[in-house]
Amino acid sequence: MNRRSFNRRLLLGGTAVAATGTTALTSLSSPPSVHAATADTPPRTAPAGGQVRHLKMYAEKLAGGQMGYGFEKGKASVPGPLIDINEGDTLHIEFENTMDVAASLHVHGLDYDIASDGTKMNRSHVEPGGTRTYTWRTHLPGKRKDGTWREGSAGYWHYHDHVVGTEHGTGGIRNGLYGGVIVRRKGDLLPDKTFTIVFNDMSINNSPAHQSPDFEATVGERLEVVMITHGEYYHTFHIHGHRWADNRTGLLTGPTDPSRIVDNKITGPADSFGLQIIAGEGVGAGAWMYHCHVQSHSDMGMAGLFLIAKPDGTIPGHDPHH
Amino acid sequence: MNRRSFNRRLLLGGTAVAATGTTALTSLSSPPSVHAATADTPPRTAPAGGQVRHLKMYAEKLAGGQMGYGFEKGKASVPGPLIDINEGDTLHIEFENTMDVAASLHVHGLDYDIASDGTKMNRSHVEPGGTRTYTWRTHLPGKRKDGTWREGSAGYWHYHDHVVGTEHGTGGIRNGLYGGVIVRRKGDLLPDKTFTIVFNDMSINNSPAHQSPDFEATVGERLEVVMITHGEYYHTFHIHGHRWADNRTGLLTGPTDPSRIVDNKITGPADSFGLQIIAGEGVGAGAWMYHCHVQSHSDMGMAGLFLIAKPDGTIPGHDPHH
Amino acid sequence: MNRRSFNRRLLLGGTAVAATGTTALTSLSSPPSVHAATADTPPRTAPAGGQVRHLKMYAEKLAGGQMGYGFEKGKASVPGPLIDINEGDTLHIEFENTMDVAASLHVHGLDYDIASDGTKMNRSHVEPGGTRTYTWRTHLPGKRKDGTWREGSAGYWHYHDHVVGTEHGTGGIRNGLYGGVIVRRKGDLLPDKTFTIVFNDMSINNSPAHQSPDFEATVGERLEVVMITHGEYYHTFHIHGHRWADNRTGLLTGPTDPSRIVDNKITGPADSFGLQIIAGEGVGAGAWMYHCHVQSHSDMGMAGLFLIAKPDGTIPGHDPHH
Repeated sequence: MNRRSFNRRLLLGGTAVAATGTTALTSLSSPPSVHAATADTPPRTAPAGGQVRHLKMYAEKLAGGQMGYGFEKGKASVPGPLIDINEGDTLHIEFENTMDVAASLHVHGLDYDIASDGTKMNRSHVEPGGTRTYTWRTHLPGKRKDGTWREGSAGYWHYHDHVVGTEHGTGGIRNGLYGGVIVRRKGDLLPDKTFTIVFNDMSINNSPAHQSPDFEATVGERLEVVMITHGEYYHTFHIHGHRWADNRTGLLTGPTDPSRIVDNKITGPADSFGLQIIAGEGVGAGAWMYHCHVQSHSDMGMAGLFLIAKPDGTIPGHDPHH
Repeated sequence: MNRRSFNRRLLLGGTAVAATGTTALTSLSSPPSVHAATADTPPRTAPAGGQVRHLKMYAEKLAGGQMGYGFEKGKASVPGPLIDINEGDTLHIEFENTMDVAASLHVHGLDYDIASDGTKMNRSHVEPGGTRTYTWRTHLPGKRKDGTWREGSAGYWHYHDHVVGTEHGTGGIRNGLYGGVIVRRKGDLLPDKTFTIVFNDMSINNSPAHQSPDFEATVGERLEVVMITHGEYYHTFHIHGHRWADNRTGLLTGPTDPSRIVDNKITGPADSFGLQIIAGEGVGAGAWMYHCHVQSHSDMGMAGLFLIAKPDGTIPGHDPHH
Repeated sequence: MNRRSFNRRLLLGGTAVAATGTTALTSLSSPPSVHAATADTPPRTAPAGGQVRHLKMYAEKLAGGQMGYGFEKGKASVPGPLIDINEGDTLHIEFENTMDVAASLHVHGLDYDIASDGTKMNRSHVEPGGTRTYTWRTHLPGKRKDGTWREGSAGYWHYHDHVVGTEHGTGGIRNGLYGGVIVRRKGDLLPDKTFTIVFNDMSINNSPAHQSPDFEATVGERLEVVMITHGEYYHTFHIHGHRWADNRTGLLTGPTDPSRIVDNKITGPADSFGLQIIAGEGVGAGAWMYHCHVQSHSDMGMAGLFLIAKPDGTIPGHDPHH
């Protein structure tokens, strides 16, 4: 595995904190080719996992009192970079805390020894200027020796600080120390683009009110959203004109899958889920809102846009200077 | 399709805002015959869709500062009339805003072009006295050209204003501009009666506190509830003595369906789900409470009754003057 | 059925209110043998139900203004004793109210006539010093005469007062009048230990802040949690290093079960769900936190520990005097 192909997966979806409201993919490699859902060929799917990977992660102070995680020094973002791996993969993350307060890395959904818990209670935090290697493992589904079924690690998960401010990381999370983790199962459909949307207290991705991120796509692209909630409040996540299955992948497994199809979902702090939509499928191009549907939250600015363009780049009815 | 048979479906479940606490079905046609679950014959099921329908919808001011939607002038209700269609159907809704403020019609779950979004941002609202035709489409589940599975439109959805008060329709929703939408899949079990229950801020269907609607049925009837939440607060919806499956239809598909059976469910603004219960099944007749289980909410009056009578019309232990 | 074998099931998981933060099983019989998930033999499963049982239940005042349910006089606890039965079982519960205020027993999920509703409205409460027999029934899944599928009673349910303080039992619930109910389906996996965790307002099991219960286990044990929420607030339930399926049993039925795997779940008052985890599976021994992930709630003390020891009884990195 060379570093280049490694970055291609791990950096998909990272978001710069200084973005002007439009979140750009920061992949270091060429973007994946667009696979229109109208094509006759099957979309790309996740390969088998089983790789052991080593990476660096930094916690950094950012402008305006924000904090972020990043794979490289000086490149921290909010949300932190998306970590996109496959069932069976193991990550050894050398975490360096460049800040002047203790911090940590705590992950949801993955396997880790108590020494990688990322809590003060378990002495797995990192003092200012210090370094610690966290090891995250994942596993395939399968039968246990006793014949019972064990679930696999696949899911839409996330990581966050568990130390800054309080022993539960309330200050670190508030300031931006969080990011998404996707663990894919062999055969899971791969998207053309992945967006991370975090409802953190009354913000989206710690953006100022009424400056929530917009996401750009072209009709027919397979879009994936990693939706995470943090902080103090409950929210409801809603997208206009698109919907998803309320199950593991956000996609129905087929005609007998009983999962509810939704376009609105209640979530609370540390909940996470994922979904895939075909941009504009059945509805066409447009500036499609997504927002928290708690009325005061949307009114206070928890709303952004999926800017879904026609192949020629135009978006009907949309005035970009609105 | 004559207007009469059309109304039979679209008007099922509409609720008059002036109701004294008991919600009556306002179907213009004869009510469906009761199909007791103890019968030997299979219940009625939804037919295939594919019809194109035209209807009128009015937004009107009601007494006490309320607002409502209606199919006919002067007949607006809160909730608005239930729209009950089948996968494959298309609706062209000529919407007339009879109020003195701009308003709109925004739907969840269905397919519509951005011109039918019902938002000011997309210039799809209607000024006072104006008219606009919104087109809502639905589609069947099926395979895409690329071999992936596409979900169908079936679900328990809803419509609401997106303009009054704020750009998210906070004032319109608060005042009553909302209603339910059911999209059925061919073969879905049809109920004998459908009730729409909307937890809107601290009210049920905008009824005054402690005057929440009651719903009448007879033991053995197949009852359907379209449960919608709106406004500012989270709630938990609970029914005494009855329960449902937490999936698309509210009914298990069979013995292998892993869905959780619940009698209580957390919901937030713009969440919607549906359920079917056999009135009194295994528990008999009675005045069965439904209520929000957030303790202060039920104490403040977010509670009503399913008045489930024996075939002779009596309800054991129930004093109607209580 | 002798009383001894009866108690073995019904008393599993009862919690003493005076516990110092560590919840002990109070089974009157010998504890079940530990079935390590690494064993080659299948775990124990639930038998067929169909038994009719009679038991006593008392509501009692406890120290500090608390109230509790118990199977014996002077043994009330918070939560009340766990009731663990099988689909098809019937319980006749002779309830004695030893307190100086009216109280009741209201159950979720099970079948009961309106006379066992446990509400004042249905005159099914119990005055101070009085006695009333509540009958709870359960049923198997199966086909109705009309060919439709009827769900069974299996689930993670709960009981609570519906009378003290307000007509919705707000005072009784606040003070501790609640407990868990498990209805098992024939073939459901039986755990080695069951813990009841109730998020009640800002407490866990009515424990004082920062004194939430800890639960002890050994690596490889099959642990079951009955998770119930009560009171006023929404919460998110999170366990470190372990996860479960968001479906009926908390366990996937196999490779095609589309349920989401979670380690964090939003819940509201009267919601309940169950889960099973293999202690330390894939992560080893440790002091694994569980907590509400609403940041202010965890910071205020809604957090406890799964103290998962190695077979030799040690817990790596854990200082019990911390």
